[in-house]
Amino acid sequence: MRYTSAAIEALIEEFAKLPGIGRKTAQRLAMHILHEQPGEVGKLAKALMDVKERVISCSICQNVTDQGDDPCSICRGSNRDKSVICVVESPTDVLAFEKTAQYRGLYHVLHGVISPLDGIGPDDIRIKELLARLSPEDDVKVMEVIMALSPTVEGETTVLYISRLLKPLGVEVTKIARGIPVGAELEFIDEATLSRALEGRSVL
Amino acid sequence: MRYTSAAIEALIEEFAKLPGIGRKTAQRLAMHILHEQPGEVGKLAKALMDVKERVISCSICQNVTDQGDDPCSICRGSNRDKSVICVVESPTDVLAFEKTAQYRGLYHVLHGVISPLDGIGPDDIRIKELLARLSPEDDVKVMEVIMALSPTVEGETTVLYISRLLKPLGVEVTKIARGIPVGAELEFIDEATLSRALEGRSVL
Repeated sequence: MRYTSAAIEALIEEFAKLPGIGRKTAQRLAMHILHEQPGEVGKLAKALMDVKERVISCSICQNVTDQGDDPCSICRGSNRDKSVICVVESPTDVLAFEKTAQYRGLYHVLHGVISPLDGIGPDDIRIKELLARLSPEDDVKVMEVIMALSPTVEGETTVLYISRLLKPLGVEVTKIARGIPVGAELEFIDEATLSRALEGRSVL
Repeated sequence: MRYTSAAIEALIEEFAKLPGIGRKTAQRLAMHILHEQPGEVGKLAKALMDVKERVISCSICQNVTDQGDDPCSICRGSNRDKSVICVVESPTDVLAFEKTAQYRGLYHVLHGVISPLDGIGPDDIRIKELLARLSPEDDVKVMEVIMALSPTVEGETTVLYISRLLKPLGVEVTKIARGIPVGAELEFIDEATLSRALEGRSVL
């Protein structure tokens, strides 16, 4: 069953293409747009186009940045430790690390992980851009590369692949600890996590 | 904490203004847009503007329709019983009735209900447009007006208000039945609904 307006139906169809938005939610959003101020809707439409037209990858860390703002604000940061690079899968992961306010090094965003089943090989993600950052000619030598990918099969494969490439370059490669999340109850932790936590135990 | 792209932040902010969409969902949607084809994003942006620019109210039933498509497809329908008008609150309610494939009359969309607490009086919803449809000069006389508003205080107030206006015009005013929803278990029905179901009992 369809609305008596083709324009509303078209908008519902477009909304329903977004991830996690079904037909019912799309209808509610379209009704909201219908009653919203034209200026507000214009701002949403412009923001959509702006993201496609203005967002580029930082030429250093491959994180998202805007045209005319390259290298990105993190790579330009004067209070950043340029001898450490944290390798993550997506721009959202950078956000997660920045929230901790603990890490003061740089990042490298791969924009994906190696996943042969999905047809994503090493050349489809930003690995060669990472290698380019480790050339010994740079004024600040990179001492450590921290691998911070998700603990999935694809993530672990990517960690292994990259660490094999980096080790011959004389750079220390580490990976973030797997273990019990803070605040979790031991009895509800799965066996794989518990095994990793045991393996990674530290001396008090 | 913010993304290193102002354009992405702006889009997240706009998405988060939509109903039921928080910052996390807005981030996920923005990342989806970032990786989407420019053409697809353009279609969404265009659909948004189209709804603001092209959608109008049908001059008869006040339901949504497009410019150049007035009266709407339901009001124009040749297989519609033009002697019955079903009064609903919103275009989405029309959709719900059309889904039943039972009702073949016309609609009247009020675009709201009387709600003094929210500052919505009788003149703020499309009541006078409903009265205009009941003038005796029309070639097809309206015999029945079915009130199909939500069973809230505001809905019931609106039903009462409109029925008092319509009765002197010699038109039959009815309202849809309140009772047990199909498929519901009696023990889980609230008392108010059960009382209404008792009141509205019918002879077998």
